[in-house]
Amino acid sequence: MAHEQHQQLLQALHECMEECNHCFNACLQEDDVKMMAECIRLDRECADICSYLEQAISRKSPYVSELASVCAKICEDCGKECDKHDSEHCKKCAEACFKCAEACKKVS
Amino acid sequence: MAHEQHQQLLQALHECMEECNHCFNACLQEDDVKMMAECIRLDRECADICSYLEQAISRKSPYVSELASVCAKICEDCGKECDKHDSEHCKKCAEACFKCAEACKKVS
Amino acid sequence: MAHEQHQQLLQALHECMEECNHCFNACLQEDDVKMMAECIRLDRECADICSYLEQAISRKSPYVSELASVCAKICEDCGKECDKHDSEHCKKCAEACFKCAEACKKVS
Amino acid sequence: MAHEQHQQLLQALHECMEECNHCFNACLQEDDVKMMAECIRLDRECADICSYLEQAISRKSPYVSELASVCAKICEDCGKECDKHDSEHCKKCAEACFKCAEACKKVS
Repeated sequence: MAHEQHQQLLQALHECMEECNHCFNACLQEDDVKMMAECIRLDRECADICSYLEQAISRKSPYVSELASVCAKICEDCGKECDKHDSEHCKKCAEACFKCAEACKKVS
Repeated sequence: MAHEQHQQLLQALHECMEECNHCFNACLQEDDVKMMAECIRLDRECADICSYLEQAISRKSPYVSELASVCAKICEDCGKECDKHDSEHCKKCAEACFKCAEACKKVS
Repeated sequence: MAHEQHQQLLQALHECMEECNHCFNACLQEDDVKMMAECIRLDRECADICSYLEQAISRKSPYVSELASVCAKICEDCGKECDKHDSEHCKKCAEACFKCAEACKKVS
Repeated sequence: MAHEQHQQLLQALHECMEECNHCFNACLQEDDVKMMAECIRLDRECADICSYLEQAISRKSPYVSELASVCAKICEDCGKECDKHDSEHCKKCAEACFKCAEACKKVS
């Protein structure tokens, strides 16, 4: 993986993790939490795998490609779920997820 | 830390992590998710720190005592929140949390 | 995933995580640490993915199958590396890794 | 925690995690790995807690203060160990660790 690609992916993962956790927290405070249940679940899935992959890339894990492939899928699913909702935290999260999915696909 | 104490703590952490994640998942499927919002939040906090501490103990981290102290507090808070609710997954989770908090206090 | 299969996998992951972290710590205390460098690296990779997958299974993550597939590969690589060395911690770790790889393959 | 302080801490944690993992990987490739054993151990401890705290802050965990207190201690210990060695990766890691320890202390 070229150095620039590596830095772009790390940045995308970091932003995605932050937005997913921000969205997780904001969803739990919505009036209609039930409507956000799948979003809450996927926000956690996505934040966790992004955080994991950040560490894996940083330590030059031999498994970055396989992990990035799983991460791309989770980011896409989380982005699609978030995109169904109108709140700003969901829209921003969806954007970060789709951007991260693209970055992951380049190394998977 | 004596070997037996070590094994008891690992077991308590593992059970607590499992129950918290089970409760997290079950809460997201309840009819009244809003009522479970704090439970969902604390289940994640508690599962994550228990899982982290399991790894720290296993690798003989020099920081087991400090981490166990934080873990005990999170387990107690999560146990108290779960104990407010009537569903079986919350009651079982509360029990695992309180047991784990006690085990953590012995090494913190 | 059937309940029994689920419990077997959780148990295999937990034992593998413990053995990998034990081996990681023991390798760092060997006389010839250089010879154990790849073992140290893979022990961390393997402990981390096993711990991650334990949590994913416990929260009924929709991505257990994909994660288990990556985990199986890491367990196999770690087991093969450990198996090259004669120390008891490496042999025990290799055994736990191979057992865990098999359990992962059943759900991947 | 004020927004600016929050962003500074997230940045410090992220850089520290990256440097620790970079140092972990570089130490494993040194000629004299034995001399780096404690550095390797602490790099992992430090990268893991920084990554954990990044997530905790991002999801507005109620335990940021307690976790930051443990993280500050680990960062300091890791920085001191790295600072004993002459290689560039150790010096850069020490710097990131000390900076992160300071940022953690402000919120602990």
